[in-house]
Amino acid sequence: MIDCGEGAQSGFARQGFNMNRLGHIFISHNHGDHVFGLPGLISTMGLLGRTADLHIHGPQQMEEFMTMLLRTYCEGMTYNVLFHSVDTTRHQIVYQDRSVTVWSIPLSHRIPCSGYLFREVPSLPHIRREMIDAYGIPVSQINNIKAGASWVTEDGTLIPNERLTIPAEPPRSYAYCSDTAYQPALSDLLKGITLLYHEATYPQELLARAQETCHSTALQAAMIARNAKVGRLCIGHYSGRIKDETAHLKEATEIFPNTVLADEGLILEL
Amino acid sequence: MIDCGEGAQSGFARQGFNMNRLGHIFISHNHGDHVFGLPGLISTMGLLGRTADLHIHGPQQMEEFMTMLLRTYCEGMTYNVLFHSVDTTRHQIVYQDRSVTVWSIPLSHRIPCSGYLFREVPSLPHIRREMIDAYGIPVSQINNIKAGASWVTEDGTLIPNERLTIPAEPPRSYAYCSDTAYQPALSDLLKGITLLYHEATYPQELLARAQETCHSTALQAAMIARNAKVGRLCIGHYSGRIKDETAHLKEATEIFPNTVLADEGLILEL
Repeated sequence: MIDCGEGAQSGFARQGFNMNRLGHIFISHNHGDHVFGLPGLISTMGLLGRTADLHIHGPQQMEEFMTMLLRTYCEGMTYNVLFHSVDTTRHQIVYQDRSVTVWSIPLSHRIPCSGYLFREVPSLPHIRREMIDAYGIPVSQINNIKAGASWVTEDGTLIPNERLTIPAEPPRSYAYCSDTAYQPALSDLLKGITLLYHEATYPQELLARAQETCHSTALQAAMIARNAKVGRLCIGHYSGRIKDETAHLKEATEIFPNTVLADEGLILEL
Repeated sequence: MIDCGEGAQSGFARQGFNMNRLGHIFISHNHGDHVFGLPGLISTMGLLGRTADLHIHGPQQMEEFMTMLLRTYCEGMTYNVLFHSVDTTRHQIVYQDRSVTVWSIPLSHRIPCSGYLFREVPSLPHIRREMIDAYGIPVSQINNIKAGASWVTEDGTLIPNERLTIPAEPPRSYAYCSDTAYQPALSDLLKGITLLYHEATYPQELLARAQETCHSTALQAAMIARNAKVGRLCIGHYSGRIKDETAHLKEATEIFPNTVLADEGLILEL
């Protein structure tokens, strides 16, 4: 889960998601609209008898809030909440397991703020079963071939790896960048990712306001997406001043056509 | 406003209530489901440019949470939040203005907890305009008559006050009692009030569980209402174990017929 605004626990119920499958929460920054859902979510999982550890990753600044919260409202809870401080000035690995690696993304906001980049661990190629059968390759060699080995038949013919395998699907990736002033250098970190969520608080006509509050415009979000050649862009975090989101979408799609508007409950498949 | 669970600010929007009309929040106790809406509500009113003071009344135990909240998330806000500590061991006035007096009600929960009793300030009686005209009573005497004076006509006839006035509507009152173990003595404090909200976390068959967790049963809530001879009882704060609220209602109405089930968005007129 990334960020946790007020009402997050109701969101889980509304979407039919299981809170117990939640292992890690990545918080971008210590502003209320990104953390005020934590108290309720953490307490409710305690009341429901959760036992698995919950890991919260976020800027050092939120540790005091977490400590007060756990001490005051979570006494005697059946599970542990572990806080991991994220260095918001560096692009580095903050978490990894067998399927995903999570990187921090330094953002530029009024307080320390980090985006997060989720990179799927690349899969091994698929074996072409009919080739294995045709050359009589023993099962013991399958892992070597998946790892890139070729095969030499009894008569000495070399069968190159690419004839024995089908390449795996390219690993998927997702980056979350909110809240942040326009940072053109982000494009370098985000080259070719599958889906980029980038905040677009204001339209370009409110550029001065965006700069003043360390937010981005829809046009700027689209520039990042275009320069990084991402697969798809999702924009969100609209200012209350935006009455017509279609104009906001139009501004972005003129720069980067494959853009969608974030909306509560929206599900995008990667 | 009494208590402030997560999502309170959305509740205001959903009900079409104006947050700016909110001057005082009375908190019963420092458990998450009664305070986790404060951070979002307070911050949002700040973002919307509120200028009027907001007063929060509650047990001393929540002051640390309030202090941390205001210091960390509400810097530079356009209005002040003032915390007033409530002595949860006494039945005393915690607030009054021209129209209402608010009393604390000592409750018995796992942590210090106070209910609140709202008593409308009694109105003066209405003047019977036709009597005033008939006896030619000057305008200068109206306030005296409202305050209880009688009138002596020029020929010395005494016109008693009750012929000159119509009694005001009886002052309305509302008591909120949650969370609390069954306290029979509450009936004495709540004699004849218009509406009583009393928690009814469990059905009577889970009495042991109610006692263990310092909560009440529906039957116990109804006993308080019956003994206090209140006008109407509203029960709520149901345990997640209650699947069928109609059985819960039946349990209460057998003791006190004029009982309703609390529900999100329910409006009761006094």
